[in-house]
Formats: sequence, structure tokens, C-alpha cells
Amino acid sequence: MGGHDGAMNAAVIDLNADLGEGLGIWQLTDDAGLLDVVTSANVACGFHGGDPSIMGRVCAAAVERGVRIGAQVGYRDLHGFGRRFLDVAPAELTDDVLYQLGALDAFARVAGDRVRYLKPHGALYNAIVSHEAQAAAVVEAVRRYDATLPVLGLPGSAWLRLATEAGLTAVPEAFADRAYTSAGELVSRREPGAVLADPEQIAARSVGMVVDGRILAIDGTVVDVSPRSLCVHGDTPGAVGVAHRVRAALLGAGVTVVSFAA
Amino acid sequence: MGGHDGAMNAAVIDLNADLGEGLGIWQLTDDAGLLDVVTSANVACGFHGGDPSIMGRVCAAAVERGVRIGAQVGYRDLHGFGRRFLDVAPAELTDDVLYQLGALDAFARVAGDRVRYLKPHGALYNAIVSHEAQAAAVVEAVRRYDATLPVLGLPGSAWLRLATEAGLTAVPEAFADRAYTSAGELVSRREPGAVLADPEQIAARSVGMVVDGRILAIDGTVVDVSPRSLCVHGDTPGAVGVAHRVRAALLGAGVTVVSFAA
Amino acid sequence: MGGHDGAMNAAVIDLNADLGEGLGIWQLTDDAGLLDVVTSANVACGFHGGDPSIMGRVCAAAVERGVRIGAQVGYRDLHGFGRRFLDVAPAELTDDVLYQLGALDAFARVAGDRVRYLKPHGALYNAIVSHEAQAAAVVEAVRRYDATLPVLGLPGSAWLRLATEAGLTAVPEAFADRAYTSAGELVSRREPGAVLADPEQIAARSVGMVVDGRILAIDGTVVDVSPRSLCVHGDTPGAVGVAHRVRAALLGAGVTVVSFAA
Amino acid sequence: MGGHDGAMNAAVIDLNADLGEGLGIWQLTDDAGLLDVVTSANVACGFHGGDPSIMGRVCAAAVERGVRIGAQVGYRDLHGFGRRFLDVAPAELTDDVLYQLGALDAFARVAGDRVRYLKPHGALYNAIVSHEAQAAAVVEAVRRYDATLPVLGLPGSAWLRLATEAGLTAVPEAFADRAYTSAGELVSRREPGAVLADPEQIAARSVGMVVDGRILAIDGTVVDVSPRSLCVHGDTPGAVGVAHRVRAALLGAGVTVVSFAA
Repeated sequence: MGGHDGAMNAAVIDLNADLGEGLGIWQLTDDAGLLDVVTSANVACGFHGGDPSIMGRVCAAAVERGVRIGAQVGYRDLHGFGRRFLDVAPAELTDDVLYQLGALDAFARVAGDRVRYLKPHGALYNAIVSHEAQAAAVVEAVRRYDATLPVLGLPGSAWLRLATEAGLTAVPEAFADRAYTSAGELVSRREPGAVLADPEQIAARSVGMVVDGRILAIDGTVVDVSPRSLCVHGDTPGAVGVAHRVRAALLGAGVTVVSFAA
Repeated sequence: MGGHDGAMNAAVIDLNADLGEGLGIWQLTDDAGLLDVVTSANVACGFHGGDPSIMGRVCAAAVERGVRIGAQVGYRDLHGFGRRFLDVAPAELTDDVLYQLGALDAFARVAGDRVRYLKPHGALYNAIVSHEAQAAAVVEAVRRYDATLPVLGLPGSAWLRLATEAGLTAVPEAFADRAYTSAGELVSRREPGAVLADPEQIAARSVGMVVDGRILAIDGTVVDVSPRSLCVHGDTPGAVGVAHRVRAALLGAGVTVVSFAA
Repeated sequence: MGGHDGAMNAAVIDLNADLGEGLGIWQLTDDAGLLDVVTSANVACGFHGGDPSIMGRVCAAAVERGVRIGAQVGYRDLHGFGRRFLDVAPAELTDDVLYQLGALDAFARVAGDRVRYLKPHGALYNAIVSHEAQAAAVVEAVRRYDATLPVLGLPGSAWLRLATEAGLTAVPEAFADRAYTSAGELVSRREPGAVLADPEQIAARSVGMVVDGRILAIDGTVVDVSPRSLCVHGDTPGAVGVAHRVRAALLGAGVTVVSFAA
Repeated sequence: MGGHDGAMNAAVIDLNADLGEGLGIWQLTDDAGLLDVVTSANVACGFHGGDPSIMGRVCAAAVERGVRIGAQVGYRDLHGFGRRFLDVAPAELTDDVLYQLGALDAFARVAGDRVRYLKPHGALYNAIVSHEAQAAAVVEAVRRYDATLPVLGLPGSAWLRLATEAGLTAVPEAFADRAYTSAGELVSRREPGAVLADPEQIAARSVGMVVDGRILAIDGTVVDVSPRSLCVHGDTPGAVGVAHRVRAALLGAGVTVVSFAA
């Protein structure tokens, strides 16, 4: 792999998406469509969405396609889809995460594999960017359950920092369809231009992030990024098409698209 | 008690009880008290009762004492404590059981052991005495999860018969404090005399069932029983005291009190 | 339309549909679309589907359009969408119905009207066709809450019979898109041909039921029906279009489309 | 009632307590015991605790005794007993409160009375001391439902201030068994001495608060208070006995113990 283009040839990325976020009769994510394009499936575990039968179906389909199964854990809040901060005590949060991890692992194992990583969902994902006690509580759950499980999250978050300090493998992710500030943070969804919709633009930005390690911030400055995974969204119309476009662009740029999870 | 007492010396029994059946602020079972007397703990898995933190505490305490952890699985029905029949489709019931099994296993493993057996709860326990489709659905969950896990239930039930046919280890249990009919079935709780309260009587009947393999039915006839486990109740006042009395009587009669679960 | 068409001119029917059956992020029914065509809205009350914010929105929109609000009450079973029989004790079922009635009434009153009728949902609807104890329990809830509230249900059901005996106004409904047996019962959804899809056929059958009081059964025999309400479905693709077609056909046949609820 | 002791003779107070906070099989509050001593019952409405059958029983028993029924509304959080802050959007919180209000009103009306006031529970009670948006959301629910309903809360809270500004009747309460700071705020439960246990001391402080309008703060200073209601706790051992002692002391001091709710 000599030469100074080794870096480009060596570019490797994972594509992750949220799956299995229905509940009983209600559907949300295009699970089958997404499983054909991603390499890592963040499977909802029943606290913010998902139910046992959906978990079973998604795990079976993921294993068939060689997609890695991750536990997408959230607050216990079906009515709010886990998008509302809940001030749960750290010890209870550790237990809530263990419960979800174990439940999903049953389906992953029955399908012939096992849970390969963990990614927090929604308000929990956002909270542990800075909420040290809750971040540590989720880290503790993974550490106790299986300290070899990688954890996925926002670069610069308390969550990934504490995970690293605890000896876990912290995997930073970037968002293909979100605007960034010059500080490398996500522009709030409440701001105009926070979410991109044009598939070509999203694909081009994805390649830039992965191959060049750079992204154009909303103010025009260039921000360095080094994601090991790209999150593609699954709950919007056309989401699966966008994800395919991103993947094709990455492959076209010589990027290896493969899960971070062994 | 001399004579050909080889049989007596060989008498072996397990004591099981329902534990961890609180929810959040609400408590029900005297978990610490019961763990000092039983050999198998049927731990509620969050569908009819129990929550992640209770499950974590009970598993840790059980492992400390060498008590075996079993998954006490039920219908999803906190408001009815799993005591109301729910006509869930078999495939969904299999998934509901897998979910509960996996969730509990996380806590058992974190505590240093693993789930060692399964026992259905409440209305599910009663339904699968005769409801073949639901019985088969629970069997299927165990078979897929870990076909070496013993299952606990009522002698003569469809549940234990189908479990045996599927290659599972079926463990028949008897009830120390319940009246039996001459057919060897439990007298319905709605009948007078269905539940015994006198600790001495309960202890004596326990010894009779285990050592002699016989129990006096409510109509005065003698019924043959051959339980490998005795269920003692934990949700009544004085329950722990009764359980200790039963255990002491069994030990006094030369019975070995040990879990059926390897 | 001359001749002894007095009956035809006098033909009056209500159109009812299930609404508000989403939960949090999950949507199911096209509430806005249905409210433009029906005269009675069966609003889910949070036990099988629906949540407070959906209930508030649907009630406001119904009142704006002059559509009557009915309490669509079900078993407490979000995961099964109330489609699984639950063996709840009658006294508890009465309380569950009262709870749902009161909750919906708050939104109906805040919107400027009140709950005008009650219709059971899913497995409860089906159960009380023949389950006398549960049927009586639902009747008892209505009787206690407001004995002037009409109740909607299947002709010939224990539910409508007991409602009538208790002095309630029982409103029989027919299904525009379902096949009937020669006994006037619905063909099970498990049978082929149970659910009709052709809008023209559904519209024609609707007119036949309302104007002529007759429906062609699946075996070709003619069955007498006398519905005061027609149920149109809202949870299938094209449902709103079918409902509009049914309404237009009824109006074209001189039928007055108006709610049964004062 | 002339003379300068008119004030003392005219002293009037309400005693309120939390009731109906069980769930299904799980019990918490001594509802029957408390209803014999309080004048206002804060009845849990099913979101943090309580269920339809408990609500029905408590309402019937309250009406029998002439005790006023209040809606004790909370976050939707059975697992955390409503004691964990939930960042629910204001519009959804308004709807959640309306739902609970209506549900309880059904049972109050069936019992022959109606909901007479509202008191937030747990983390919601604490949040709206300062969380303006959530406080306004609860105010809005009451205003829409019935603007004549008094609301109970902490003196000096955003909740009571916004309620007053919206034209509601704000009723300040004091806590018979809690220590106060010199600023008139409650000493945090995490501090030593925050909760008093001695019945005589609690009774004496109650009389001081009601008759003299003063309470000795934890630092020895005297704080002015002017509660229209005293909250007595129902979820601790001996709680009912303490409540009786408080009531007897108040009556002995010439205080009229009567609800604030018309």
C-alpha cells in the first residue's frame, strides 16, 4: 500500500442507520430497504421504539445480509419516542441499558450472531454529549456487559471520552445530511439549513468527510473530521435512495465500506 | 427411620419462589428473605412485574447466595400483573419470551452466572397447561435461546409435554401450600380450602410429597406426586417463615435440598 | 324517484370511522381526510392507540367540521393495538372504559362539544358480541357515565342486546367493505373474499344496505340489514377515497347522511 | 367576629394528602386511613401511579366522607413514579394534564361529585416551581378545562404566579413535616433534618403555621407563612397517625379544618 495515495486507498467507512423503530401495528423505518445499504444496523430495543417481534425480524434480516447489529438504546419513553430528556438516576440508567442490551442480544444470538456495538438514541444521545453522570452510566453498562463492544457517538462528546477512559472502543460518527458549525458541532435542527435534502450534495459531502477528512461548515469554513462511521437517516421519505447514493459515491471514490465492528 | 431407606436418603428437591415482582417504587416480594431459603429464584422479567434495577439487585443477591436464577416470563401486562389471559399470537409470544430471557440473562451474567431455567408466570402458566399453541410458543423460545435450559411447570401440562417432545428438560413442580384434587390437579383458588396457611401442615405435606411421593387430596384420597421442585409463595404475610419451616422439615427428613439446574 | 319512495326519501345513515389511532411519532389513520367525509369519528382513547395530543387535535378538527365525537374504547394493549383478547375482570373493564371515556370527554369539551357516543374497538368489539360479562361491563360504564350516550355495535350482539336492556340507545352498524354470511354475520378476515376493495362495489353495496335494507351474502343469498350507521375503514391505502365514493353514492340515492348522535 | 383575636378564631386550613398511588397489585398509600383525616384528596391519575379501579374506589370513598377530590397529575412515568424530570414539550404537557383531569373527573362524577382542584405531583411539582414553560402548560390545561378549579402548589412558585395571572385561584400550601430555610423554601431532602418524624413536633409546627402564620426555619430564624392547605404525607409508616395528631392539634387550637375547594 505504498505511495502517498495510500491514505486514499485505505479510506474505510461504516454506514449506520436506525432500524426497527416501529411498535406493534405502527411502522416507521424502511428496515428491509436500509439493510440493503448499511453495514451497521442500530436496532431499537423496545424502550423508545421497537418491539420483540420487530427486533427478531430485523436481527434475522441483518444476519442474512452480513449487517452488524448494534443496540440502539434509549430512555423508557414510547410516547415521546425517546426524544425527551429524562432525568433518570445513573444507576437506574445503567440497568435500563443492560436490560435493552440483553434483550436485543437474545434476538441477535437466535439469528446466529450477537450484538456487536451500542449507540444511544435521541435525547439520550444528545444528553450524554455533555451530561457526565448519564454518559458514565451508559459506559458502565457496556463495560459490565461486554467491554469489547465498541460504542458509537459524537466526536468530542463526554460519552466517547468516558468510554475511552473506561477502556472501551469509541467510534466517532459523522452525519451525511446535517450541517456543521465551524466548531465541528451539528447545527441545531431548529436552525434553517440544518438538514440537507439534496442527494448529490449529501453524497459529495460524505466523500469529502471520509476521503479528505474535511467538511464545509455552514459559515463556509473548513472543519476537520475523521469519522469511522457515517449515519444515514432512515425515517424520511427517500431516505433509502439517499443512502444508496451515498454508498455508491463512496465506493466510486475508492472507499471501503465496511463495519467497524469485528 | 431405618430399613431400606436408600430411597429416603436419595430424596432430592428444589425450592423455588417468585422474586423481584416489584415495580419502581412498589414492592411486593421479600426478595432478601426468600433468597436465604430457596434454591431457585424465579425472577420477574419486566412484563408482568420487575424492572431493570430490581432484576439487577435480585440477580446479584442470588449469585452471592448460590441460588439459581430462572426467568419468570409473563404476558405484557403490568396493570394486571400478568394474571389475565392475553390471546397473543404464538409467534409474538415466542418473541416476548425471548426478549424477557435475554434481558434477564444480561443481569445474571453481569452478576457472574446466567439464566439457568425458565418458569412461566400467572395467566401464562395457567394457559399453557392446556393451550397447545401458546405452550408450543414458549417451548420454541427456550429451544431457540438455549435448548439446555430446563423448564419448570405443572405435571401433566401441555407445556411440559411439548417441552419434553422438543428435547427440553421438563421439571415438574408441586405446591406446598395448595390443596389438590383426587386427579392430582390444584383446587381452584375460588374454592374453600384451596390455599393452606398452617406452617406445620404445609411442612408436613411437603415432606410427604418429596419423601413418600404422595399427597392427601382434598377429598381424602391419596394422590401420587413426584416433584423435582416445590414452589413456595413469597407474596403473602409470613411467607418467608413458612418457607423456612418447609426447608427445615425437609432437611430433618433427610432430603437433599438443591436446585435442579446444573 | 316517484311512487312509494317515501322510504327511500326517508333513508338516513351515519358514516363512522376509526380515527386518531396513532401514538406519538407513529401515525396510522388519515384523520384530516376522514373527518371531511364521515359524520361520526370513533376517536381512540389511548389504551389501544391514540395519545393525549392526537386526541386533542382530532377533537378540535371534528368539532370544526361538525363531526360527532365517539369514544373508541379498547383493551389496554398498545403493543397489540387492542386486537388481542384480554381476560380482564368485568369490574376492572368498567373502570377502564370510564377512564377512557372521561379522558376523551376532556378534549371534546375543551373543543366545544362532548363525547356523543361509544364504540368498542378491536378484540373488545369482537369479544362482546358473545362474551356476556364483558359486554355487561362496558354497558355498565356507559350507564354510570351518561345513560343518554348511544352505543354503536354489531347487530345481534350481546353488547347491543344488553345495552338495550339497560336502557341505552343501541345503534346497529354495517360494514361497507366486508362480506357477510347468509346468517348476517361478517365473514372472518381469514377467509378469502372477506374484505372488499373495489370502490364501486363497496358504494353499491352501501346503497343497497341503506336504501333497500338488503345485502348480498357471500353465498349469493340475500340478507336483511337495517343499519343506522355504516363503518368505513381508515387504515388502508385509498380508504379516504373509498369513503368519499360511498358518501357520494348514498347522497346520489337520496339518502340523508347524518349522525345518529343528537 | 370582632376583636383582635378574630384572626385566630377565623383560622381556617385544609389538610391534603396524596392518595391512590398504587398500581394494579401494588399498593402504596393507606387510602382508607387518610380519607378519614384529610379534607382534600390528591388522587393519582394513572400517569405516575394509580389505575382506573383505584381511582374509582378512592373517589367513591372520598365522596362518602365529604373529602374533596383533586387531580394529582404527573409526568407519564410509572417506572420512576413521576419523580424524574421529563422534558416534555409544553403543548404536550397541556394535553397530558387534560387527559388525566378528564379521566379522574369521570370517576369523581360517577361517585356523585367532580374534580375540585388540581395539584401537580413529584418531579412536575418541583419543575414548575421555576420552569416557566411547563408551569404555563399546566396552567393552560386547567384554564381550558375549568377555569374555576383552584390549583395547589408551593408559595412563591412560577406555577402559582402564572396561575394567578391566568385568573385561576392559586392555593398556597405548607408542609407539616418538612424543614424550611430562612428564605421560606423547603430544605432539600438530601440535607439532614429535612424531614421531621416526631408527631408532636409536626403537630406543633402545624398549629404555628396556621394560627400564627409563622414557622421556625432550620437556622432558627422565624419565617412568615400563610398556607391555605397543609400537606400531610401518606406514604410513610405511621403517616396516618401523624395526620390525625396534626388534625387534633389544629382543632384543639380552634382552627377550622375545611377544604379550600367550594
